[in-house]
Amino acid sequence: MEIKVIKTKFVGIVATSIDGRISQSKQSSLPWTSKEDWNFLQKTLQDFDAVIVGHNTYKVAEKNLKKRNTIVFSSQKHLSRGTVKFFNPKQADIKLYIKEKRYKKVAILGGPKVYNFFLENKMLDQLFVTIEPYVFTTGVPMFTGDKFSKHKFTLLFVKKLNKNGTLLLKYKYGN
Amino acid sequence: MEIKVIKTKFVGIVATSIDGRISQSKQSSLPWTSKEDWNFLQKTLQDFDAVIVGHNTYKVAEKNLKKRNTIVFSSQKHLSRGTVKFFNPKQADIKLYIKEKRYKKVAILGGPKVYNFFLENKMLDQLFVTIEPYVFTTGVPMFTGDKFSKHKFTLLFVKKLNKNGTLLLKYKYGN
Repeated sequence: MEIKVIKTKFVGIVATSIDGRISQSKQSSLPWTSKEDWNFLQKTLQDFDAVIVGHNTYKVAEKNLKKRNTIVFSSQKHLSRGTVKFFNPKQADIKLYIKEKRYKKVAILGGPKVYNFFLENKMLDQLFVTIEPYVFTTGVPMFTGDKFSKHKFTLLFVKKLNKNGTLLLKYKYGN
Repeated sequence: MEIKVIKTKFVGIVATSIDGRISQSKQSSLPWTSKEDWNFLQKTLQDFDAVIVGHNTYKVAEKNLKKRNTIVFSSQKHLSRGTVKFFNPKQADIKLYIKEKRYKKVAILGGPKVYNFFLENKMLDQLFVTIEPYVFTTGVPMFTGDKFSKHKFTLLFVKKLNKNGTLLLKYKYGN
């Protein structure tokens, strides 16, 4: 009997200011990224079987996420609503859940604690970073970790998305 | 009589992790950037008449800064030690001081409050950002402002500095 092992790929996708801020505040729903980044995101998500977001990100993007397989990290009890699954990663193993669902490519869409969860658990295989040409000076940082660590990535490519200089970077974890 | 007006150019130079962190802590003196970034910095500073740093950055980089015209933002009384001038920007006008000194190109080397001072006072004409391929998840952010604002920049160029994918970006303020 042949056993097929599915190795799921987890890919962080994030849009940031030059100074590493991803939004004004946790509940902020003001869209601020370029349409070129939006187009990139929509096109890229077609390749993914599911997305994972935190509760705040879900509330902000609910309308756009409902049509996809969406896992919302939440302290609530596990429950499902259509394509949306609320999941508490402290009570159950997300890796196991993804495996059971046979998702091969999962996009991590934030916020900072969710990106951090996958990084700390050595599950963040790749990272797309869109850098919009702004400095915010304050706001929500890309990652929120408890302890400083030099997590090494390797740049795969860099692409200019528009004339203003919105940049798309792609990294893989490790060397 | 001809009056020559010197318009000083202020250029921020910063090295950051992918997630917008410039060091582990304010007092951290551990060098963490690539040698290619270090070479870029040393070569670029040759074009500048003076550098401006905050007190923490000065303490960390004192040895390297002493040989240059260095202005240290400080709450101490104004005093000079060789090429180093301690300057309180709340008590005196830095623009006027630079003008008197006839400095044409001044490099802002951080930390976050110093970068922010020049940005908020609309004096940050250009910004070099070196992105090293790490995620820190915590640490000192690039800018520390009091209020959120979308300060618009325009990308002038992007350059890969080494095989790991250290990137050098150059921006100008505004459109």
